[in-house]
Amino acid sequence: MTHDALADGLPDISLVKDAVQRLQGHAVRTRLLESALLNERLGCRFFIKPEMLQRTGSFKFRGAYTRISRLTDTERAGGVVAFSSGNHAQGVAAAATMHGIASTIIMPEDAPSIKVENTRALGATIVPYNRFTEDREQIAETICAEKKAAMVRPYDDKDIISGQGTVGLEIAEDLEILGLSADIVIAPCGGGGLISGTALALSDASPTTKVWAAEPEGFDDTVLSLVKGKRVINDPNARTICDALASPTPGILTFELNRQLLAGGLVVSETDIGKAMREAFRTFKVVVEPGGSVALAAALTGKLDVAGKTVVAICSGGNVDADLYAKILNSSD
Amino acid sequence: MTHDALADGLPDISLVKDAVQRLQGHAVRTRLLESALLNERLGCRFFIKPEMLQRTGSFKFRGAYTRISRLTDTERAGGVVAFSSGNHAQGVAAAATMHGIASTIIMPEDAPSIKVENTRALGATIVPYNRFTEDREQIAETICAEKKAAMVRPYDDKDIISGQGTVGLEIAEDLEILGLSADIVIAPCGGGGLISGTALALSDASPTTKVWAAEPEGFDDTVLSLVKGKRVINDPNARTICDALASPTPGILTFELNRQLLAGGLVVSETDIGKAMREAFRTFKVVVEPGGSVALAAALTGKLDVAGKTVVAICSGGNVDADLYAKILNSSD
Repeated sequence: MTHDALADGLPDISLVKDAVQRLQGHAVRTRLLESALLNERLGCRFFIKPEMLQRTGSFKFRGAYTRISRLTDTERAGGVVAFSSGNHAQGVAAAATMHGIASTIIMPEDAPSIKVENTRALGATIVPYNRFTEDREQIAETICAEKKAAMVRPYDDKDIISGQGTVGLEIAEDLEILGLSADIVIAPCGGGGLISGTALALSDASPTTKVWAAEPEGFDDTVLSLVKGKRVINDPNARTICDALASPTPGILTFELNRQLLAGGLVVSETDIGKAMREAFRTFKVVVEPGGSVALAAALTGKLDVAGKTVVAICSGGNVDADLYAKILNSSD
Repeated sequence: MTHDALADGLPDISLVKDAVQRLQGHAVRTRLLESALLNERLGCRFFIKPEMLQRTGSFKFRGAYTRISRLTDTERAGGVVAFSSGNHAQGVAAAATMHGIASTIIMPEDAPSIKVENTRALGATIVPYNRFTEDREQIAETICAEKKAAMVRPYDDKDIISGQGTVGLEIAEDLEILGLSADIVIAPCGGGGLISGTALALSDASPTTKVWAAEPEGFDDTVLSLVKGKRVINDPNARTICDALASPTPGILTFELNRQLLAGGLVVSETDIGKAMREAFRTFKVVVEPGGSVALAAALTGKLDVAGKTVVAICSGGNVDADLYAKILNSSD
């Protein structure tokens, strides 16, 4: 059975607003962070949206909780199943436990150990698989059928996209308090759930905002797909330090939204990513994982003209192993 | 001329409430952070107050801004002078620049380079001194007299204490939203400005809360002074990784408040501090400097019975050099 993501049509803004209500009191209402020194350096009002401070250390909790909260009691009875490199895994595990239901997560054997350990600690059963030889979606479908469990997809799902979209509404709300509106919002892009939801939210709450996707080299499938007007697939031999963004191709729903709503895409190198992680450490005192830093990296490289503008980079997660983080802090290229 | 800290009497709660108004829109309203996994591990509701997210990377901005905002135009005309290992320096520099006045900061030659660089970037003139052979207070008094500048003391001052006390009011407010009140609040203690202000605020906003001081080994002057009932001086040969807490003895005003208001003091080792910094990295995704982590360290060591309670550890700052931070992340003792 192939998943037909488009069967129900695209999510709309009312679904994002409903997600805000569902997440109230359960998700962390993260607040934009700003630095006077960085503003001066970049010549703009520059903010980060610190989603590493979100429950489970990334924005993924928003979508997972929204999706599970919308399941019927019957759908929930068999628990939930998800496949994920780690951040979605933790979001689903936490959200399932909060709803009192079981979760089974299919995770790559080479996922960062902090992500695997936390997912297990949050109450999930872990099923490891080999990213290069096995099909995680097929494994998940099989387990769903056996357990009569509900699938919680990582991005190509209306409920997930609408949950992640709450990030966009919060950005608009925080800026409004300061009498500002965003000229530019940059978001990391893997499968595209965060950025498509954010763009959907901002198309309503802040229609003049330009939303840009940021991707790491080798996994610039959304950037290329936007240029070609159709979904392209990354080279299967590509590797990246950004485990959170290693999706092979854009989602169907997410790309349809992104095609309509995004201003464009930006590609960053591993050197740019290291610089961004060190900037977040030094300037904002927050831990950003490699995949979580690509939007900040894109902003810092000067690929966009930000002078005099109001700019937000979403830092989407902070689940990085200590040894890798220390290595990146000590590096200076 | 010796500074007579007690001449005006002790600060009271109305001064803290006034500081809240002054800081509105200028300081970051930091929100308590919580982790379901850590709650489970500690068997309590456990929160950190993340003051590394404060403007200039530590709580010190609160007191500095409050003090400068209360100077008369005449007092402000000659600018301000401060002595500091680095966090107060940055707070004063930022607050002075925001008020459009000059600042001169006397800083130890061996202060972390991130603190010196940021203080200069924030607009201050730096005067280096030797911590072991020179008297920073005397240097500051001389410059004040020459420039007709106002001194912004690091802790033994009503305005400073009342500004830092806003941390306590915010803790009470955040917990009230959750239907909780703090049983225990633990704060790092150097000269005692943060903890005395916090204890003063909580004595009004949450009178059943027990407030504990945390100090590093060798600089446990407040812990010892509380036991002896009078201010004692640390061994001048003592050294600590906690540059932010290396004050020789409690302040006069701060100790008078602490003597009346604190439940007691807790001493932590450098091993405890490393563990706490790694816990903050892994669990909360925030950067805590050594001195900023001593309250968290005290909570994690199990020195207090926290079972079933509501506990807050103030993480007071995140200004730590990358190489030291990486070394601590890589350590595992």
